[in-house]
Amino acid sequence: MTGPLGIVAGGGPLPRRLVEHCLSTGRGAFVVAIEGHTEAATVEGVDHLWTRLGQTEAAIQALKQAGAKELVMVGPVKRPSMTELRPDRSAFKFLAKVGFRSLGDDGLLGAVVKALEEEGFTIRGVDELLGDLLVGEGCFGVVEPDELAQHDIQRGIAVVHAMGAADVGQATVVQDGIVLGVEAVEGTDALLERCGPLRRDGPGGVLVKLSKPGQERRADLPTIGVETVERAAAAGLRGIAIEAGGTLVVDAPAVSAAADRAGLFIIGISIGSHAATP
Amino acid sequence: MTGPLGIVAGGGPLPRRLVEHCLSTGRGAFVVAIEGHTEAATVEGVDHLWTRLGQTEAAIQALKQAGAKELVMVGPVKRPSMTELRPDRSAFKFLAKVGFRSLGDDGLLGAVVKALEEEGFTIRGVDELLGDLLVGEGCFGVVEPDELAQHDIQRGIAVVHAMGAADVGQATVVQDGIVLGVEAVEGTDALLERCGPLRRDGPGGVLVKLSKPGQERRADLPTIGVETVERAAAAGLRGIAIEAGGTLVVDAPAVSAAADRAGLFIIGISIGSHAATP
Repeated sequence: MTGPLGIVAGGGPLPRRLVEHCLSTGRGAFVVAIEGHTEAATVEGVDHLWTRLGQTEAAIQALKQAGAKELVMVGPVKRPSMTELRPDRSAFKFLAKVGFRSLGDDGLLGAVVKALEEEGFTIRGVDELLGDLLVGEGCFGVVEPDELAQHDIQRGIAVVHAMGAADVGQATVVQDGIVLGVEAVEGTDALLERCGPLRRDGPGGVLVKLSKPGQERRADLPTIGVETVERAAAAGLRGIAIEAGGTLVVDAPAVSAAADRAGLFIIGISIGSHAATP
Repeated sequence: MTGPLGIVAGGGPLPRRLVEHCLSTGRGAFVVAIEGHTEAATVEGVDHLWTRLGQTEAAIQALKQAGAKELVMVGPVKRPSMTELRPDRSAFKFLAKVGFRSLGDDGLLGAVVKALEEEGFTIRGVDELLGDLLVGEGCFGVVEPDELAQHDIQRGIAVVHAMGAADVGQATVVQDGIVLGVEAVEGTDALLERCGPLRRDGPGGVLVKLSKPGQERRADLPTIGVETVERAAAAGLRGIAIEAGGTLVVDAPAVSAAADRAGLFIIGISIGSHAATP
């Protein structure tokens, strides 16, 4: 028996889903909740510790005392500056060792995963436990991308992959070949919001959201949900392209219904078969 | 004698500077002003034609009639969608030939330059005519970047170059290793504005604005001016890094004074000596 699942919970609804899964299967869970990131509802009715980023010693000790041997990191965590982090001794040693300032987001998460493994934990991806989250190939709802949208998807793939080479961002918005926006730390919601006013006349753009090449999949898979669809529609987009096997969808039936309501397409694409040419 | 200079004028103050240069040297100029892009002051007291993007035939004819043999494209032009463009027959043929939708911004500008050359014009860079615009190496004002800022500059170079590989953007804001924002079509002003609220505690970030590798230098060099410095200061940044020989500075003495007033550094860096490792 592996004991309760240790859940390092970032923001959004996904951590709560995982908690409920663990409670309903009787496995149980211990949640490390992060001040300013984790939603309060995530820890309702489950053992947990509120902590802040940078306080790693207490969190690791609490997970061990709870008997958690397997860990899942789930939900977005806004990357802090060194000043905000106020690292404890153990966190500071870790950050100095991995070279905090020279690492990209994914490089940093990869280092965190490795450090937790060295503490004796087994790190698993949230998609291993909630198997219905990973997107498959094909369209979600009734709308399908036309030829122009397919072009924009191709251009978006090339842009996200180019960004990925510098370990930045997972998403872009492309309209008629024009890159309206590229996501950095502001997140997809903010990207969509600013692309509304940047929209050109003519057929609307496409949100392309993919995992980075070589991304640490156990720590940070790109995620969309109903809100993403609604924001995309509000920004005048025509559709969303996500990565089959590389993007998580929270509540796929609701996402599919929201896409149909808004007249948007949502398509899971296999990146292997869509070789990107910048 | 090469006749009056043909000036295809985008936005900002730089086209007017070039007009004044041509008038004061007695060479004269003919300006193609673009509706919605060119400032009204640009064409005061100089022969010109107002046109819209997509109306290339009339513009080329007017330039030829004015006796312009040399052309300069100067000032930013927001890239339109095909629908907004409403191309005339000649523009449509051109766009179909170059593959409008699959080209990045710079690819498109390069194609425009080539097409104008095929019309018999010689295309020159604005920096060839206004020689004091190109940035040299070193600091503009009294403030210099510290070690942390140097780190952020390095990360910024890697990010802009990665973006450049997909022919997107020229600028990024990096704070303490965190990429706060990446520029697409919204422009540097909008990038700086949104990076203000994204700012983390601790020493402020750095704006890095460079030409893209392989950029068509005669059509679109990145530019900063006093307003860029003021917006960077308002966003809580500590400095600006630009490319020696690759970025234009409008009114360098005023930019230098603005930097000193705001306590910001502005440094011209030689990219060759700052090899970027993503």
